[in-house]
Amino acid sequence: MTDLAFERARTPEAKRARQETILAAAARLAAAGSVREVTASAIADEVGMHKSAMLRYFETREDIFLQLAANAWGEWSAAVRTALEDLAARPTAGHREADQAAQEIAAVLAHSLVARPLFCDLLAHTPLNLERNVSLEKVKAFKTRALAGVAEVGSALCTVTPLRLDQARGVVATATSMAAAMWQMAAPGTKLRAFYESEPDLAHAVVDVEPQLTDIISALITGYTARLTRPEPN
Amino acid sequence: MTDLAFERARTPEAKRARQETILAAAARLAAAGSVREVTASAIADEVGMHKSAMLRYFETREDIFLQLAANAWGEWSAAVRTALEDLAARPTAGHREADQAAQEIAAVLAHSLVARPLFCDLLAHTPLNLERNVSLEKVKAFKTRALAGVAEVGSALCTVTPLRLDQARGVVATATSMAAAMWQMAAPGTKLRAFYESEPDLAHAVVDVEPQLTDIISALITGYTARLTRPEPN
Repeated sequence: MTDLAFERARTPEAKRARQETILAAAARLAAAGSVREVTASAIADEVGMHKSAMLRYFETREDIFLQLAANAWGEWSAAVRTALEDLAARPTAGHREADQAAQEIAAVLAHSLVARPLFCDLLAHTPLNLERNVSLEKVKAFKTRALAGVAEVGSALCTVTPLRLDQARGVVATATSMAAAMWQMAAPGTKLRAFYESEPDLAHAVVDVEPQLTDIISALITGYTARLTRPEPN
Repeated sequence: MTDLAFERARTPEAKRARQETILAAAARLAAAGSVREVTASAIADEVGMHKSAMLRYFETREDIFLQLAANAWGEWSAAVRTALEDLAARPTAGHREADQAAQEIAAVLAHSLVARPLFCDLLAHTPLNLERNVSLEKVKAFKTRALAGVAEVGSALCTVTPLRLDQARGVVATATSMAAAMWQMAAPGTKLRAFYESEPDLAHAVVDVEPQLTDIISALITGYTARLTRPEPN
């Protein structure tokens, strides 16, 4: 890789390509470790640019990860909507008990999140760190895409459950926030997880994310559904 | 405050008193802003000690906040158990519909969390940052107290709902994790919250924590209860 390859990008296309290269490098580094450990310097090294040159394309390290988080929301939203459509199209779909349907839908949501550890990691860091060290313009661009993701998956949930849209959005918010929290507590390969597993007293601290997340999401769907189908208490 | 006042504490009691002073200073600073903004130097300044002297009593800044988090788990657990006992002792307690009881219990949990913004802030930082920069011995001491809190509040929930203990613990884990996540998204007085409120497109980003948390917790309790009282699906 020559210095020439990283002359300043002069066209919008070249600029966008450069940004994509930087985002991909940040994603690789974060996936190998965790978002919190990846510095702007490490990303610049991975790309083979000087840090000051890289920061012509993004405001800050947080701007890079916030952009990755926005992309991850979009990718997750598309994937989970496809998975929910597939579920609805199964020949048995119309014959399931409500509880079993809630369980299957919850399993789709939980699996889609657990299969995306970088998204889970980004979800935890977004409100705590990533939204704090960028311009409000960047926050708005990110938040708009994240809210679109919640709305899209919420609407998809409404097509496969009796939930109202506000309830469905509550399910999406809970699923994503709990995936983020549990992933932090249980990230495989970390020193903490190895320690919990080695200490019998801390067995409860080892979260088995996918089944626990499925359990919580399905209970939530069942609870919201029950409210809809029961008369209001006096 | 003279330097003499901060000679090294030589007895266990003096050492404990010194630690309490440092913890109280850290809590004051975090409550005035947020955990993420409070450095070890700022805590030392607040106490009137040199940072190096302060770090004779705690391993790191994270050790100080992890200790505050452990204390906050204990204080919250005691308070919420008392509140649940009060709820169960109300003359109308035996006459409520299950949905209304779930709503009232959820309101107690949500209120107890929202009334403790420092606890909510610490809950978010614990797995992301605070457990990462201390010795495993300190992690174990913290985790043991946090797990005790979950177990205590879970058992208390079992006395006022038909939930199984594992379900009740799921409710506690969800309530605390969602309180942490929502608090980060909605912390009043922050630049971000003011920005969301000023942008009509971002209205959904403004989380009104207490009612939303109550809604999620009560749906979860209703959902777990419904599962218990229905026959298993075939």
